[in-house]
Amino acid sequence: MTSLGDKGEGHRETTTKVLNQGSWTQVSCPCCVSEQVEPLVLIQLSDNIQPVTKRWLISLIEVPERDGGAALLAHPGEDECGDVIVVSAPRCTLLRATEDLGLCKKYHNGDMVAFSYNDRDNFRNVDDMQEFLTLAERQYIVKYELDFLRAQKGQKIPGVPESQGVLKARENICQKLEKAGVIKDIFPLHDKQRLTDLCRNWYSGKQIWGQPLDSIQAYFGGTVGFYFSFLDFYTWALVPPAILGLVLTFLLPGGGSGAGVVKEQAGGVVEVDDSPSVSGHMVQAVFSMLWSTLVMEFWKRRSSSLSHRWGLLHLAERFAEPRPGFHGTLGINPVTGRLEPLFPEWQRQLRVGLVSVPLVGFFLGMVVLGMTGFYHGEALAQGFHQDSGSLFSGALLYLPSVAHIVYTNMLGNVYRTVAMQLTEWENHREESSFQNHHTTKVLLFTFFNYFAVLFHIAFYKQDLPLLRKRLASLLIVTQLVNQCTEVVVPFIVDRFFSAPQKKQQEDDPNVDKLRAQRSLPPFPGLFAEYIELLVQFGYLSLFSCVYPLTAVLLLLNNVTEIRADAYKICKLFRKPFSAPVSNIGVWQTAFEVLGFVSVMSNCWLLLLSPRVREFCLEGGISGRNIILFAILVEHVLILVKMILAFMIPDEPDWVRIKREQIEFHSMQALGQQVRE
Amino acid sequence: MTSLGDKGEGHRETTTKVLNQGSWTQVSCPCCVSEQVEPLVLIQLSDNIQPVTKRWLISLIEVPERDGGAALLAHPGEDECGDVIVVSAPRCTLLRATEDLGLCKKYHNGDMVAFSYNDRDNFRNVDDMQEFLTLAERQYIVKYELDFLRAQKGQKIPGVPESQGVLKARENICQKLEKAGVIKDIFPLHDKQRLTDLCRNWYSGKQIWGQPLDSIQAYFGGTVGFYFSFLDFYTWALVPPAILGLVLTFLLPGGGSGAGVVKEQAGGVVEVDDSPSVSGHMVQAVFSMLWSTLVMEFWKRRSSSLSHRWGLLHLAERFAEPRPGFHGTLGINPVTGRLEPLFPEWQRQLRVGLVSVPLVGFFLGMVVLGMTGFYHGEALAQGFHQDSGSLFSGALLYLPSVAHIVYTNMLGNVYRTVAMQLTEWENHREESSFQNHHTTKVLLFTFFNYFAVLFHIAFYKQDLPLLRKRLASLLIVTQLVNQCTEVVVPFIVDRFFSAPQKKQQEDDPNVDKLRAQRSLPPFPGLFAEYIELLVQFGYLSLFSCVYPLTAVLLLLNNVTEIRADAYKICKLFRKPFSAPVSNIGVWQTAFEVLGFVSVMSNCWLLLLSPRVREFCLEGGISGRNIILFAILVEHVLILVKMILAFMIPDEPDWVRIKREQIEFHSMQALGQQVRE
Repeated sequence: MTSLGDKGEGHRETTTKVLNQGSWTQVSCPCCVSEQVEPLVLIQLSDNIQPVTKRWLISLIEVPERDGGAALLAHPGEDECGDVIVVSAPRCTLLRATEDLGLCKKYHNGDMVAFSYNDRDNFRNVDDMQEFLTLAERQYIVKYELDFLRAQKGQKIPGVPESQGVLKARENICQKLEKAGVIKDIFPLHDKQRLTDLCRNWYSGKQIWGQPLDSIQAYFGGTVGFYFSFLDFYTWALVPPAILGLVLTFLLPGGGSGAGVVKEQAGGVVEVDDSPSVSGHMVQAVFSMLWSTLVMEFWKRRSSSLSHRWGLLHLAERFAEPRPGFHGTLGINPVTGRLEPLFPEWQRQLRVGLVSVPLVGFFLGMVVLGMTGFYHGEALAQGFHQDSGSLFSGALLYLPSVAHIVYTNMLGNVYRTVAMQLTEWENHREESSFQNHHTTKVLLFTFFNYFAVLFHIAFYKQDLPLLRKRLASLLIVTQLVNQCTEVVVPFIVDRFFSAPQKKQQEDDPNVDKLRAQRSLPPFPGLFAEYIELLVQFGYLSLFSCVYPLTAVLLLLNNVTEIRADAYKICKLFRKPFSAPVSNIGVWQTAFEVLGFVSVMSNCWLLLLSPRVREFCLEGGISGRNIILFAILVEHVLILVKMILAFMIPDEPDWVRIKREQIEFHSMQALGQQVRE
Repeated sequence: MTSLGDKGEGHRETTTKVLNQGSWTQVSCPCCVSEQVEPLVLIQLSDNIQPVTKRWLISLIEVPERDGGAALLAHPGEDECGDVIVVSAPRCTLLRATEDLGLCKKYHNGDMVAFSYNDRDNFRNVDDMQEFLTLAERQYIVKYELDFLRAQKGQKIPGVPESQGVLKARENICQKLEKAGVIKDIFPLHDKQRLTDLCRNWYSGKQIWGQPLDSIQAYFGGTVGFYFSFLDFYTWALVPPAILGLVLTFLLPGGGSGAGVVKEQAGGVVEVDDSPSVSGHMVQAVFSMLWSTLVMEFWKRRSSSLSHRWGLLHLAERFAEPRPGFHGTLGINPVTGRLEPLFPEWQRQLRVGLVSVPLVGFFLGMVVLGMTGFYHGEALAQGFHQDSGSLFSGALLYLPSVAHIVYTNMLGNVYRTVAMQLTEWENHREESSFQNHHTTKVLLFTFFNYFAVLFHIAFYKQDLPLLRKRLASLLIVTQLVNQCTEVVVPFIVDRFFSAPQKKQQEDDPNVDKLRAQRSLPPFPGLFAEYIELLVQFGYLSLFSCVYPLTAVLLLLNNVTEIRADAYKICKLFRKPFSAPVSNIGVWQTAFEVLGFVSVMSNCWLLLLSPRVREFCLEGGISGRNIILFAILVEHVLILVKMILAFMIPDEPDWVRIKREQIEFHSMQALGQQVRE
C-alpha cells in the first residue's frame, strides 16, 4: 500500500498552481492582498448555465458583506465548459468568521483564547492564514459565508426563467440556486500535497500504533477528527476485555466456549453445550458493565481535552445565524438583537413530543411486528411442509425469510425518508441540534433492527446456546463482509479500474485536477461508521458474557477498520465539509445508554444461565429468591455505575481551568464595558 | 395573633434612630457621605475586651481595602459595657461587592443585567442603596467584606496576650479573633419597621393564600426566600394527590383504609384488614411516581424564574475569594490570577471518594446493625420472658428499646461531629459546595434513620398491614409533635414568658434594642425544615399506595407549617446571614433521587399486596412471571420518568432567553476588548 504514498509524492505541485493567478476577483481590502490565492471550494454549476448567471454569481461572491455579498474570492475556473466556480477567502473574511464561529486560537502567551478580531494582533500566526486556520476551517468558513448569502428585496437571478428566478426578501440564495438547478454541488477541494503527507503518516507508511489525529483534524475538520479519535480510543479500550476474554476462555477450568465455537466452525452444525463456568460468566458480566462506564467517562475527558487542543471549547453556534434550512417568521432575535427568522422553542418541543416520538415508536413497532410475522410465517410454512411434503411446500419454506427481508428493506427506506422530513419539520435552529435529532431517529431504528433478533432469542426464547451461536456467527460474518466491502473491493477498484483513467488524466494535469475530484462520489457521512462501532459495543456489553471472545474479535476488526476508514476517506470520496464541533454529539449518549441497558441484559443472562440454575438448585434457593437477588444486584450495579460516572470528572482539571479562564475573562470584559 | 402586628406598628422608630449619628466612622469616599447611616451588622465582643483592641478593630473596619481594611463604617455602640461594634457599609463598597458577587440588577431598560461598577449609572436606583440592594444583600455584603479581612505580614492584635495575638501573613482576621475569644458573634440586625410590615403580610394578617415571597427574600435573603418558595410550591403540589387520596378512600368501592384508621384511633388496637382495592392501589402508585417527577421538574422551572427575578442567575462564587475556612498553599489562582490559597481538585476528590464515602457507608451500616441488634434483642427478651415470666424478665422487655434509643442518639451525635469535620477536611473552596457536601452527609444519615424501620417492614418482614399502621401513626404523631413544638410552645413562651421582659426593655428603647436582639438564640438553619419536607415527601412517594390519605394529612400539616416557620424565623431567633444562592442546592437532588427510589418501592409494594396475589392466583399466572412483569413495569416507569424529566425544560423559555442574553453580551464584550 506504500505505493500510494510514493505516487502522491511523484507530483508535488499543489492544486494552488493549477489555476491561473490573474483570474481571481480582486479583494476590496488592502490587507488581504496576497501573492498566491489558495483555491478552497468548488461550486459545480449545471452544464447549460448562462454566462450571465455565472457572472452574477461571481459578483455576488466577491461583493463585501455590507452590500449583501459573501466577501470571498471567486475564480471562473479554466475548464472549457465553464461550469465551475472556484472560491477562496481573503484574510479579513476568514478572521471575522473565526470570531463569529467562536474558535479558540493560540494567544501570544501560548494559551488557547477565543479569537477576537479587535485583538487580532495578539494572536500567533495571524498573518499567515495557512498556519492560523486549518484547511478544514478555511473551507468551512467559505461554505459558512456562501450559506448566508441572503437575497435583497425584489432581487432576480439573471439568465434563469422568471418562474424560478425571483427571490424573496432574505431568501437563502444558495439553496434557491440549488433548487433552480443552477448549482449542482458545492464541495471543498483536496490539497494533493497535504493529502499525500497525511496518507503517509496515517496508513500507508510504517506507522502502526496511533494515528496523526492533529493532522486529520486539520485536514478533514472536527467531525472526522473526533470520529478517528474515538475509534482510536475505543480500540485501545478493547484491550482489557480482550485479555479477560482470552484468559476466561483458555486458562480458566470449565470455561471453554471458545473451543466449542472452533468445533462449530470446523464441523458445521455441531451442538455446543459447554458454557463458561459460573464464576467466569459473572466476572465477565460485572467486568463488562463497569468497563462500559469507565470507557465512556474517560472518553469524555479525552474528548474535552481534544476539543481544547483544537480550539473548539467555546463554539458560538447558539449566537450565530440559524442553519440554512431553518425557517420562521422574521423578527428580532431577543438574544442577539439581529433580524432573523424566529421559531418558538415550545412549538418545536411539541412537534418532537407529539409527532416525532409517536411516529418513531410506530416504526419501531413495525419492526417488532415484522419479526413476529416472520416467526409466525415460518412456523406456518414448516407445519404446511410437514403436512404435505411436496416440492411446492419446500419452496414455500423460503417465503417467510424473503418476505421479511423485503419488508425490512422497504420499511428501512420509508423510515429514512420519514426521519429526514420529520427532522426538517421540527425546524431546528442549530445544525448540531438538527444532526443530533436526525441521528437519534435513524440510530434507534437501525439499532432496533440489528438487535431485535438477539433480544428475541435472549428474552423471549431464553435460549442461551442459540444466542451464543448467533452472536459468534454475526461477529465473524459481519467482520468478513466488512473487510471485503470496506478494504478489498475499494482497493481493487482503485488499483485496477481507476488507475488507467488516472494515468490518462495526469497527462494534462492543469485541466483535469478539478475534474478528477468532481468525478468522485460524495462522502456518505460518518453515520455508518459510528453505527458499526455502536453495534459492536452492543454485542460486547450486552451479550459478551455468553461469548467471551467477542472483544478479541472486535479488537482484530478495529485494527484493520482504522486503516480501511482512513483509506476510504482519503482516496475514494470527495472531501466532505466538516463543521467545528466540540464532541461526538449524540453518539456519546447512545454509548452511555447502551452501558445502562447492558446491566439489565447481563443480569438477565446470568439468571438464565444453566449453571446458575444448577447452583441454586444445589444450594436449595427458590426461584423467586434468586430473581429478587438478581434485581437487587442489577440495582446496585446501576447505582455503582452512576456513582462512577459522577465521581470521574468529565473534563481533566487543566481543561476545566482553561475553560474557567475564558469565562472569567469574558465576565471581566463585561464588567469593564460601559454600554451606550 | 394580629396583636403582634399592632404592637409593631405602635413604635415606628426604626433601629436607625437608635444610634447617635455622629459616632460613625468617616467615609473616605465623597460620594458615599449620607445623612443617615443604617446599622446593618452587630459584632458582639467579649465582655472583658480592652479598649485598644476595640479601637484597632474599628480602624481595621473603616480603612479602605487597598490598605488591608474592609472599607466599611463602624460605630462603637452606645451601650455602657462597650462590648459591641455596629457596622454599616458605604455606597461604593456595596456597589463593588455587588459586582464581585455577580448579582443582577435592574438596568435602565428594565432588564435584569449583571451589575457592573463601571456601568453603574445605567442601573436603576443606583443612588438609593435601600432600594438598589435588599436588606439581606447589604448585610451579607458587610459579612463578606469582614470575612475577607486578611492580616498583613507580622501584624499583631493589640491588647491580646502575645501567645494568641500574632497573625500570620494573609490569615483570616475575623476567624482568628473568634478563636482568640475577642469576637463572640457576628450577626445581622433586624429592622423593626420592615419586620413588622413583613409579619403582617406574611402570617399575622388576613392573608391566607400565598406568601409575600419577594419581601421574604428581600428581608431574609436567598436561602430563606428559596425555602419558603419551595414550601409554598410543594404545598400547592400536594393538592392533586390529596384529592386523589380522598377519592380513592371514600368514593371508590372496596377502598376504605381511611375508615380502618378511624376505627383504630377510636378503639385502640383494632386490627385493620381492609386494604385499598387493587385498581385504586395501582392508580395511587403510578400517580405518585409520575407526580413526583412532575413536581420536581416544575419546581426547577419555578426556581429558575425566581432566581432570575431576584437577580441570582449569574452568581460569580467560583471567581470570588475562597470561603473563610478554606486553606491550602499560597499561590496564583490560574483562573483569576489572584494570590490565594490553592488546593488541587483531584486531592479533594480523593478525600471524598476514599475517606468520606466509606466513612458515611460505615455509619449507615451502624444504623442497620443497631436495628438488627434491636430486633434480635427484642426476640431474645421475649423468649426469656415467656420462659421465666418473672417481673425482672418483664422489665427486661424494655431493655432493647431503651438500648436502641440510647445507641441511635449517641450514633447521631458522633455522626454529626464526624460529618462536619469530614466536610471541613475535604476543604471545599466555595461555600455552596461546602454546604452541599455537608448537607448530603447529614441528610443520608437522617433519612436512613427515619426510614430504616419502614423499609425493614416493607422489604424484609413484608408485612403490609403493619406498614400501613406504622405509617398512619408516624404521620399523625409526627404532626402532633411538630405542631406542639413548632407553634404552641414557642407562642406560649413568647406571649407569657418573654413579654414582661420586653415591656421592661421598652422603657429604655435606645439602649436595649440591640440587647434584645443579642438575647435571642441564633437561628439553627434550615436543615431541620428541609429534612421534615423530605421525610414527608418520602412517606408520600414511597409508601402512600398503602395509605392513600397521606397527602391529605401532609397538606393539613403544611398549611400550618408555613405560618409556624414564618413566626419562628421572624420572632424567635436572631436574624441569620443568608448568602445569595440560585436554587435550593442539594435538596433538589435529594427530592429527585427519592422520586426514583419511589418507583422501586411502589412496584415492590404492589407485588406484595394480597389482592394482586389473589388476582394472579385467579388468573393462573405463576409467581415467577408476576415478578418479571413487575420488573418490566418498574423499568418502563423509570424510563417514562426520565423521558418526562428530559422533555420538560428546566427553565422557562423567557428565563433561557435572559440567560443567553447575558452570555451573549459577555461574549461580545470579550470580543470588543483589546487586552494589553
